[in-house]
Formats: sequence, structure tokens, C-alpha cells
Amino acid sequence: MTKDDMVMVPELAPLVGTWRGSGRGHFPTIEDFDYEEEFVVTATRKPVLATSQATWGARGPMHMETGWLRWCGNGAVEWVIAQPTGLAEVSPGTFVDGVVAVAGPVHGTPNAVDVLQVRREYRFSPDQLDYDLWMATEVVPSLTHHLSARLMRVSG
Amino acid sequence: MTKDDMVMVPELAPLVGTWRGSGRGHFPTIEDFDYEEEFVVTATRKPVLATSQATWGARGPMHMETGWLRWCGNGAVEWVIAQPTGLAEVSPGTFVDGVVAVAGPVHGTPNAVDVLQVRREYRFSPDQLDYDLWMATEVVPSLTHHLSARLMRVSG
Repeated sequence: MTKDDMVMVPELAPLVGTWRGSGRGHFPTIEDFDYEEEFVVTATRKPVLATSQATWGARGPMHMETGWLRWCGNGAVEWVIAQPTGLAEVSPGTFVDGVVAVAGPVHGTPNAVDVLQVRREYRFSPDQLDYDLWMATEVVPSLTHHLSARLMRVSG
Repeated sequence: MTKDDMVMVPELAPLVGTWRGSGRGHFPTIEDFDYEEEFVVTATRKPVLATSQATWGARGPMHMETGWLRWCGNGAVEWVIAQPTGLAEVSPGTFVDGVVAVAGPVHGTPNAVDVLQVRREYRFSPDQLDYDLWMATEVVPSLTHHLSARLMRVSG
């Protein structure tokens, strides 16, 4: 089975692949930090892509997350993401002109940190992916820029 | 790196592996159905396991989900699960005597089906995993048995 067979939605095909690069994080309540990232987008036999991500720094592994990018037709998408920190994002948005832009509430387990909302903007070109992420927390309750990264396609 | 190096919590080590088998689903609003399943539990460098699951039937792929089983100490766990149907579970619970038992609210994207709550009970023995899953929906608002499956360990 080739990649094209597995992508039920042709619009989503350009996102499929393994992307690697580096990013920088900041937030009013923490010190700035740098990170390396691998982001993997996999086709499924449904109109949805599987997404998974891991980041690491000089001191070892940092963040991880897995999720599903759902195609809802006419440029509408929904991205559901689970994080080992106990958080889950359920974010509607759009995928137009190569840009996935979603925002939504964040729900946590009882022991999770208090993140209230996340907004993500992922700008895809054939071999490069730039993204920004904003979050709102109990302490910083308005959406505030948290992450910027540039990744390059390393496999198709 | 061996599996033991990657499992930060010795209590969680017996869950790590690939499990395969079959199950049966029912719910008041749908017809009964049978399914095959592969459930993969992977260690990470943190006190959390990555979980992923796929089921299929005679007519092709059925359900998929990915998530994180968090160890909170003293037999307490939290399981965060994202589903391509647009649903996310954030469920606290326990892991005692080989049994992971969690229950919690289900949060959905705007286009997701209305599942309100899920309860899962996964009973692990060295080479066998039996589980049951109950769910509550808008139409059936009390937790109602939905899935039973028996899986066998196929790799460590």
C-alpha cells in the first residue's frame, strides 16, 4: 500500500511525513528554553491523520504528544491531542493554503497542570513546517505565545 | 537501551508489550459487532506509558486511539486518550493487583459524537489481557457496558 492509497483526503497528503527541527519556548512563568523536535504525521484508512511529536533538550526528553487531525470538509479540521502531562486538547479550526490553525479548550486529569486553552498555527510548505503555539493557563489566563519552531521534512 | 531502562516505574513494566486478540461490542443504540484488536503499550523515559490501539472487522478498520497512562504513585494512575472520532478521555483511576480501572469525562470537538463518560477496566496477567469498557452518551446517559475483549501478549 502506498501513501496515496492511505490518504483518504487528497488535501491532507502534503502533511504526511516525518519532520525534524528545533524550536524555542517561553512563557511568563518559566525560563526560556530551546528544544529539538520530531513530528510525525501518518495517513490512516480514514479521513484523519495520526500525529505524534516528541521534543528533547540538552538534559534529555521534554514533551511528547499524540493525536488525530480530522478532516471535516471544506477546509474545516479538528485536532484532538493527548499529552502525557494529563492534558487533552479538542480544537476545531481550519486547513487553508497549507496552514492548519486550530484553537480550543484543554481538559486535564485531576493531577494535570492547569492549562485552559491552546491555539496552534502550523504552516506547511513542501519541505518545511513552521509553527507557533499559544496557551492560556490559570496563572496567565489570556492566550500567550509559548512555542515557535521550524522543522524540515526528513521523510515522505 | 532495554525495556527495563525505559520503564521509570517498575510497577508498570508488566503492561509493556504488544497484545492481540478479539472482542465484542454492544450498546442499546447499535447492533452487536465483533472485532479484532492490537493494543500496544510502550515505555517512555518518563513515569508514563504510551498506549495505542487499533481494531478492525470483516469490513476493514474500525476504531483507533492513542494515549498516555500516567503513574501518580501509590497505585493511582491517570489515562489520557485521544480518538480520531474527535473525543478525548481524561480519566483518573487505580492500578492495583494487575488491574487498571479508570473512569472520567469525555470531551469532544464540535463535530464529535456525544459521548459523556467512559469507564475502563483492564485486567493484566503475564500473557493475557481482558478488558471491559462502559460508556455513557447523550442518548444513554448512564454508564452502560459497551466492549469486552481478550487479548494475548504477542511480544514483550
